[in-house]
Amino acid sequence: MSDTETLGVVGGGQLGRMLAEAAAPLGVEVVVLDPTPECPASPVARDQIVGDFDDEAGVRELAARADHLTYEIELADPDLLEAVGEEYGVPVNPDPETLRTIQDKLVQKRALQDAGIPVPEFQQVDDREDLIAALDEFGSVMLKAREGGYDGRGNVPVEDESDVDEALAEIEAATDGDGTRAMAEEFVAFEREVSVIGVKGEDEIRTFPLGENVHREEILRETVVPARTAEAVAERARGVAEAVLDLLSGRGVYGIELFETPDGEILVNEIAPRPHNSGHYTIEGALTSQFEQHARAVTGRPLGATDLRSPTVSANLLGNGEERRPAEWSGDDAILRHPGASLHWYGKHEVYPLRKMGHLTVVGDSEALRASEERTGCAREHRSDAEDETERLLREARELRDEVTFQ
Amino acid sequence: MSDTETLGVVGGGQLGRMLAEAAAPLGVEVVVLDPTPECPASPVARDQIVGDFDDEAGVRELAARADHLTYEIELADPDLLEAVGEEYGVPVNPDPETLRTIQDKLVQKRALQDAGIPVPEFQQVDDREDLIAALDEFGSVMLKAREGGYDGRGNVPVEDESDVDEALAEIEAATDGDGTRAMAEEFVAFEREVSVIGVKGEDEIRTFPLGENVHREEILRETVVPARTAEAVAERARGVAEAVLDLLSGRGVYGIELFETPDGEILVNEIAPRPHNSGHYTIEGALTSQFEQHARAVTGRPLGATDLRSPTVSANLLGNGEERRPAEWSGDDAILRHPGASLHWYGKHEVYPLRKMGHLTVVGDSEALRASEERTGCAREHRSDAEDETERLLREARELRDEVTFQ
Repeated sequence: MSDTETLGVVGGGQLGRMLAEAAAPLGVEVVVLDPTPECPASPVARDQIVGDFDDEAGVRELAARADHLTYEIELADPDLLEAVGEEYGVPVNPDPETLRTIQDKLVQKRALQDAGIPVPEFQQVDDREDLIAALDEFGSVMLKAREGGYDGRGNVPVEDESDVDEALAEIEAATDGDGTRAMAEEFVAFEREVSVIGVKGEDEIRTFPLGENVHREEILRETVVPARTAEAVAERARGVAEAVLDLLSGRGVYGIELFETPDGEILVNEIAPRPHNSGHYTIEGALTSQFEQHARAVTGRPLGATDLRSPTVSANLLGNGEERRPAEWSGDDAILRHPGASLHWYGKHEVYPLRKMGHLTVVGDSEALRASEERTGCAREHRSDAEDETERLLREARELRDEVTFQ
Repeated sequence: MSDTETLGVVGGGQLGRMLAEAAAPLGVEVVVLDPTPECPASPVARDQIVGDFDDEAGVRELAARADHLTYEIELADPDLLEAVGEEYGVPVNPDPETLRTIQDKLVQKRALQDAGIPVPEFQQVDDREDLIAALDEFGSVMLKAREGGYDGRGNVPVEDESDVDEALAEIEAATDGDGTRAMAEEFVAFEREVSVIGVKGEDEIRTFPLGENVHREEILRETVVPARTAEAVAERARGVAEAVLDLLSGRGVYGIELFETPDGEILVNEIAPRPHNSGHYTIEGALTSQFEQHARAVTGRPLGATDLRSPTVSANLLGNGEERRPAEWSGDDAILRHPGASLHWYGKHEVYPLRKMGHLTVVGDSEALRASEERTGCAREHRSDAEDETERLLREARELRDEVTFQ
């Protein structure tokens, strides 16, 4: 192996930043393509090419410098990546075909359903009539723009006919007036939202432990690992995630969002062909982080162990207030002082409401576990100790998160 | 706090590289000053200024861009840093006065001795006569160049008068012909070499657990944590390290190398005013890494917890062969496949014998600990389990290290 390889990444947001942080120790330098000068990844990347995600000249420049290509945002252009990758002889992972499938939520859901993977019931919605028909069949539905939505944008709950016009208008606004192009999904009254971070290598797949995701206003707030659910449910989720990884082609990390139903069934909500917000806990919580796994997988290196090092909770640091403004902030002292807490700041220069500005992670303390062993003299009480620890970590993470404020 | 601060670092070797990797999540960007273009820190730093460590224009450019200044190499110039720091109103940590004291091993040892900190006996050696006198007093001695030595260079064992001429010649060669300027230290027949990584903040000091260091050819090969020694010795070492931190002025991480004597006493060997090779294990092994601690301390942030997460062993990946050549290598697959092993590649473009090219770390598995609890049903056997684990980790680290070869 040469002393250094270069990984070209379409997108230079926080995922690209954490990918660059994780790739360096492997001897992999990162170059990113991102339209925002001084994007979050730029201080830790070898270089940033300033250009849109689908800018042909930018993608070519990236390919010319890279030994491997990947993307950290679904807005990447699969056709362009495929063509440029072939032209320059640089492998693109995950497969552009996978990105194409995932970009269109309807195509994604159909592919999953065709493979026998459990998903909520859904119907294509091209107009008002389709939506009314879906309401008739499912009762209330979640109306989703087929393309371009994220962090809840482009998802509109529809309870009955009186919501229909407003919902359709919202979807059309979210899709830049590109017609209706939507899907309606049965409204799942889930017990909890969970996710599996999976990784696909050359000839193996691995999954991280099941995480439990707490959303509010459709934005992820906290991830709790292990998820506070039955072992059988975690096993079922792992099986579903493995089926998803078998189905999709291309090396890399996948974030697989799942619903756990009240009777313990698992349904696939959505898949991201990249490291996922609900996998940030792996940086401190697992033997290998999702970012290192992604760097390993897309550069053709062996995958790492996915074992949990201790119970772990992560919490997003989201923008508050009313408007877009410079990101002046306070409250990191409490995080830095807290034993077992880690701060991840994304280096975004502006803040606006609900923007993901950073996250914090709190890990359980295995020394504490040992101390508790010495105290009790016996190990059989650990399981409940571990459960107590998860609750404690979640409480701590929320308290620390609430200390952070933006001016 | 503003969205981003900049830390200016004199030196951009592997310590600067790992410092930049650790600083980014805190919202701290790193700019380094280093004479080698594409130095190890450059791909993960915001920028590299290419210039010698004592280049006045380079240090000024660094200060002009930085909110805080530090150094990762003792070859930094304390007078220049002090003057430029004052001129630009940028704090320099650790204190340039501390760097001045540490750069001269004789001055360093005297300062420690004057503070009542236990050190080996020593004498100033300015000429042949001084060295003979030291031999008469101590029996065999270690002759050390007062300045500029590192990784064993500038340290020459002298057993009797027949070694004297060669030893003096070697010291003069190591000091670029700057006269003899040396010190002779009683030869310590230590039981083991150990070290404490300490960190000094605004108004607190903290120490990491005692590490045990295995050297060969005077170069660190492995660090084993916790050190395989008595609890009372570890406590004594911590006390000595705290006295050292009290003595030195300036915020930052200090690597404190110690000898454990056969009767369990602790003597200070040498101090580095920066993160230290024997503290690399903290990246995976401790709740906060030494690099994050250094970034926190020198930027005025609160210090982090120093608790060990699990028994941990690190091993250096050193250059082999005969000559300087491009760093083509193999053997990382075994490291990447090993559960609990992490690779840290420094991105050096050339390899030569004994050059530090990277390191690997193997952590104990707290899940394994739990599994062993469930197996035994009781926790009282853990202490010996933990000791077994340390031996196992050391064996694994050596096996993985031996897989790495350079073409």
